[in-house]
Amino acid sequence: MSHTVGILGATGAVGQRLVQLLDPHPEFDLVALTASDDSAGKSYREAAKWRLDFAIPDAVAEMTVRRTDADDIPDDVDLLFSSLPSSVGERVEPGLCEAGYVVSSNSSNDRTADDVPLVVPEVNADHIDLLEVQRDERGWDGALVKNPNCSTITMVPTLAALDRAFELDAVRVSTLQAVSGAGYDGVSSMEIIDNAIPHIGGEEQKMESEARKLLGGFDGAAVSWHDADVAASCNRIPTLDGHLENVWADLGEDVTTEDAADALREFPSLDLPSSPDPLIHVFEEPDRPQPRLDRMRGDGMAVTAGGFRETSGGVQYNCLAHNTLRGAAGASVLNGELLADSGYI
Amino acid sequence: MSHTVGILGATGAVGQRLVQLLDPHPEFDLVALTASDDSAGKSYREAAKWRLDFAIPDAVAEMTVRRTDADDIPDDVDLLFSSLPSSVGERVEPGLCEAGYVVSSNSSNDRTADDVPLVVPEVNADHIDLLEVQRDERGWDGALVKNPNCSTITMVPTLAALDRAFELDAVRVSTLQAVSGAGYDGVSSMEIIDNAIPHIGGEEQKMESEARKLLGGFDGAAVSWHDADVAASCNRIPTLDGHLENVWADLGEDVTTEDAADALREFPSLDLPSSPDPLIHVFEEPDRPQPRLDRMRGDGMAVTAGGFRETSGGVQYNCLAHNTLRGAAGASVLNGELLADSGYI
Amino acid sequence: MSHTVGILGATGAVGQRLVQLLDPHPEFDLVALTASDDSAGKSYREAAKWRLDFAIPDAVAEMTVRRTDADDIPDDVDLLFSSLPSSVGERVEPGLCEAGYVVSSNSSNDRTADDVPLVVPEVNADHIDLLEVQRDERGWDGALVKNPNCSTITMVPTLAALDRAFELDAVRVSTLQAVSGAGYDGVSSMEIIDNAIPHIGGEEQKMESEARKLLGGFDGAAVSWHDADVAASCNRIPTLDGHLENVWADLGEDVTTEDAADALREFPSLDLPSSPDPLIHVFEEPDRPQPRLDRMRGDGMAVTAGGFRETSGGVQYNCLAHNTLRGAAGASVLNGELLADSGYI
Amino acid sequence: MSHTVGILGATGAVGQRLVQLLDPHPEFDLVALTASDDSAGKSYREAAKWRLDFAIPDAVAEMTVRRTDADDIPDDVDLLFSSLPSSVGERVEPGLCEAGYVVSSNSSNDRTADDVPLVVPEVNADHIDLLEVQRDERGWDGALVKNPNCSTITMVPTLAALDRAFELDAVRVSTLQAVSGAGYDGVSSMEIIDNAIPHIGGEEQKMESEARKLLGGFDGAAVSWHDADVAASCNRIPTLDGHLENVWADLGEDVTTEDAADALREFPSLDLPSSPDPLIHVFEEPDRPQPRLDRMRGDGMAVTAGGFRETSGGVQYNCLAHNTLRGAAGASVLNGELLADSGYI
Repeated sequence: MSHTVGILGATGAVGQRLVQLLDPHPEFDLVALTASDDSAGKSYREAAKWRLDFAIPDAVAEMTVRRTDADDIPDDVDLLFSSLPSSVGERVEPGLCEAGYVVSSNSSNDRTADDVPLVVPEVNADHIDLLEVQRDERGWDGALVKNPNCSTITMVPTLAALDRAFELDAVRVSTLQAVSGAGYDGVSSMEIIDNAIPHIGGEEQKMESEARKLLGGFDGAAVSWHDADVAASCNRIPTLDGHLENVWADLGEDVTTEDAADALREFPSLDLPSSPDPLIHVFEEPDRPQPRLDRMRGDGMAVTAGGFRETSGGVQYNCLAHNTLRGAAGASVLNGELLADSGYI
Repeated sequence: MSHTVGILGATGAVGQRLVQLLDPHPEFDLVALTASDDSAGKSYREAAKWRLDFAIPDAVAEMTVRRTDADDIPDDVDLLFSSLPSSVGERVEPGLCEAGYVVSSNSSNDRTADDVPLVVPEVNADHIDLLEVQRDERGWDGALVKNPNCSTITMVPTLAALDRAFELDAVRVSTLQAVSGAGYDGVSSMEIIDNAIPHIGGEEQKMESEARKLLGGFDGAAVSWHDADVAASCNRIPTLDGHLENVWADLGEDVTTEDAADALREFPSLDLPSSPDPLIHVFEEPDRPQPRLDRMRGDGMAVTAGGFRETSGGVQYNCLAHNTLRGAAGASVLNGELLADSGYI
Repeated sequence: MSHTVGILGATGAVGQRLVQLLDPHPEFDLVALTASDDSAGKSYREAAKWRLDFAIPDAVAEMTVRRTDADDIPDDVDLLFSSLPSSVGERVEPGLCEAGYVVSSNSSNDRTADDVPLVVPEVNADHIDLLEVQRDERGWDGALVKNPNCSTITMVPTLAALDRAFELDAVRVSTLQAVSGAGYDGVSSMEIIDNAIPHIGGEEQKMESEARKLLGGFDGAAVSWHDADVAASCNRIPTLDGHLENVWADLGEDVTTEDAADALREFPSLDLPSSPDPLIHVFEEPDRPQPRLDRMRGDGMAVTAGGFRETSGGVQYNCLAHNTLRGAAGASVLNGELLADSGYI
Repeated sequence: MSHTVGILGATGAVGQRLVQLLDPHPEFDLVALTASDDSAGKSYREAAKWRLDFAIPDAVAEMTVRRTDADDIPDDVDLLFSSLPSSVGERVEPGLCEAGYVVSSNSSNDRTADDVPLVVPEVNADHIDLLEVQRDERGWDGALVKNPNCSTITMVPTLAALDRAFELDAVRVSTLQAVSGAGYDGVSSMEIIDNAIPHIGGEEQKMESEARKLLGGFDGAAVSWHDADVAASCNRIPTLDGHLENVWADLGEDVTTEDAADALREFPSLDLPSSPDPLIHVFEEPDRPQPRLDRMRGDGMAVTAGGFRETSGGVQYNCLAHNTLRGAAGASVLNGELLADSGYI
């Protein structure tokens, strides 16, 4: 069964990745693209400064870009993927939901709102039913579901696996993040060549709060955040794609590296079109995963891990995911697939 | 007063940095250079593939390279700086010490030996007197002093400052290390462009053990290692020089970021020619220090820090040092200056 | 119809690309892998330090690596692809040909020998019949065909197109070459980060001579080299894959940019499995082709061009090809396809 | 004797380099800094996002930034260095000159105007007297002198040397330019990591016209442009500083590489504070100059060259200069020194 879908903010870095994933897609039929008013009325080819390393798909190239406005989006679009800047998302997403659109959004606004499900399907698919609460409270015909930040998504499946097998007390995580996470013009070359930047504004806080919401329980009425103490240190480095993260997980007990690795290896995936199998690939080689070699594992949707070492009361390891696929566009598409599978569209 | 000095392993990446620091130097007069047998007999200009971004000093360029062998080194050299590969250092350093030479070595062999002082002068200058024990036990006329690994040096002054002001319980440290740390041919371009490598063989262990020895007490007879639990995760990234580190220090008490920053800022330097003042420069800007912008602070001998955040029972911050200056060649030179100041040469 | 094939030197950078192209291939069935004696007897998984950004194909991973020696290669292999270091190729290729093997080689030895066809199928497929001369003169049952250097291959299709439409008098070409062209460990990161190297030993000469042989005529007995004056300047830059080249072609007449671009656009491809269609993709955008965006055009087998400008008596433009696919492994595979199509295997 | 000077556009990439060169300077005393209206009134420390790899000079840091307007600049400033964006330069420079200010400008506007001297002092210091014509024609009390584009400056001293020793007929030049040439935010990291861009808008034309004006003769009334046929191809690559260029110079005669190298080596420098001696450093090593190793030669003011090869009727070689020192800020300072030396201030 096929659903018609649109992309809000289709010309940006994540928007282009959404085009890549939706043309073609087994369940979704891409029928609408929006961008800023400047781009409206142009063909997508003209409006998007296409930056991926393959030619822009012909069918999409000739579509006319619309304004990011309910009046300009066909009424019968089943699902909208949003990769709007958060300031724009904050302004237009609620109105679209009120107008009846179902929105799967990558924008950072409202991720920690009480009645907005923040979902990584393989980790907390059950949270999707927070939409019932959302509709009750907001009186929306539409719905708003969010995926977390790219750096959060990278570690959360591994933390969920450890929390299920053991018990997660605390997390210290240091990230080595690719420049694409900041958007196409987000990091200038003079800032990052032969350099690294040990701070990404707001990113540490997002990892700390979003991870706890994702790992929390849902009782049908509300999400109770996980009480793990999460502290993040975020660094930008000169890589194009793929966030690498060093994690220390305190588990309140001594754990062997084998048991920890097994917990990740055996963490189940889902039967959604974009879910990889396995979800988490564990390397034996101590120097893996590496961004350039491993970011495309599982068509860019797998999480990879390795480098397990025992610590007192826990385990230390590294994990990696493709930040604009698994960590952004792919995360939104996956949430769209969950919405379809759950009957919300 | 001037001392004659030589460099063991003068053609390598650290050897070239030693040449840079010793020509000229206010206390040391460079008179001998050694390298592998292949290079012996050649001029330094021929033997060294000079890779620094200024012309090779003329006086040094015309010196004849010697074999790394007591027979080929003038008897009256007061001090030898060693930047030999550790397998070579292990083989030749003890013999040289036995032959009466005083050696300030950057090679990793014997760093954790009971009777070998491992010293960062501003942190544990008193350990130098472990040389008395060494001479007693080994019957050497010479002496062997070591500086730690570059990644250890980067964090240890900051940890010492915190330990003095508070009490250091545990350390989690994630490093973003420059390629020069692996030597000139240590990291191929295909390994590291658009990439990062989340493991550096043996480096994690060095940081964990060397830090505890450096922070330990010395009672005149032996060094008692600090009992802090140190866990490191070492990453190689595409930067040329400068190791950046994310540190979580557990201090057993809540500490304000101001107090933590002050502890670092006020940590005293020494009155040695190569010691910077201040030793630790603390940035207010949350996105500093950065390798390219800050590695040359204090002529490459300062440690810089920033990004303080409170954690439960401790503090989180970033620090940086130039890995081949403060972290290697400069560390050995500084130990040489301490040897002179302490009357060992 | 399927032919059994083997790879000589299968563990290196080009060898790995050959594995990528041959597993699977519509006409070739990969049955043998050789490497240095150190690797012989190991599984390919153990012997090859796999460096491509996807998992090593399972079937190939479990194959046992053989010695690069006629005694260790099955007699009934129809075709051997050679990506041996040229010093090894020089030593072993003639013996293999004498022993009856047909070899499609990327190694630089013998490329300009009188009786060895140097072929880029879309440019000079007719030269393949120089093999008749070769067999006569050398008394071989086997055969040796070569493809040119990666930097030569990048420009030669564009020069052939111009020479056919106009008349090529002289070429000035400046290259911006990727590090993979030097093999996995060929360029150290300290040499190339924040840098460029304006010379690649022997490369300028290869471009100048190989281009003239490829563009030359073949009368059934000998190749008469093209008399164009070719001068090259070769630079290594910090890119992973894809050689970009700035070309000035003197054509002895004023030519419009449209006519020049059309000549390239209309240059015919061949009906071989690995030949792209079109062979040369011409961009309208003046800032294309770019290595990262365009190297995979035509599955890495297309040449791309753009930036045409009129000069007095000629034209100036840029061209690009993937150096380890179109420029090396793919070039050898394409020659293998031509050998099959021509009945030599 | 000291002159008071100011910087127009002091916060940008070239502006920061001007601060570096003028604090301190033996002849100039920096007394005024201007920037856009947004920055006016702030301290330089606040207004400039300081990006050089050393601390901002304290004295300059506390200066108050002024508006780029004659009303806001002290009347008694002897000389203004301009690193304004060309659109701003075009608008404000003539007014300042009319108001009596002498301006040494790096902005690209008016470089090829008939009555504006375009000067590289070591090459065409005599052109400075075109200011007499300028004052006559424009009725200015002030004066406007320009330095050429960074990529032009890199090659012009070497072309002047060849033209003086032989006779320059034609030039083909291919550039490998650093990202700093586009200003701090000019090239995004996603555009250039693992990539190269074979076109820089307007840059090819600047090299072609500016070089001919610089190499032209001046008869006291007008500059007659050199009639050499110059064709450039400009590429951006992932280096921070230093433009490397491959040059083919047609000299109408066969020339040995020794004679060509000697012509460059012996080309005279000037006795101005910022002129290096020698002006052109010639390397024997065929793989030099390289941007990272050689850009700081002569404190960033020397041109370096190497890789000489004979061509039919000419010579081929490489040259390099630091694009924001010799190629921009240093070029303006040098023109300021020439203005002082010539009595124009």
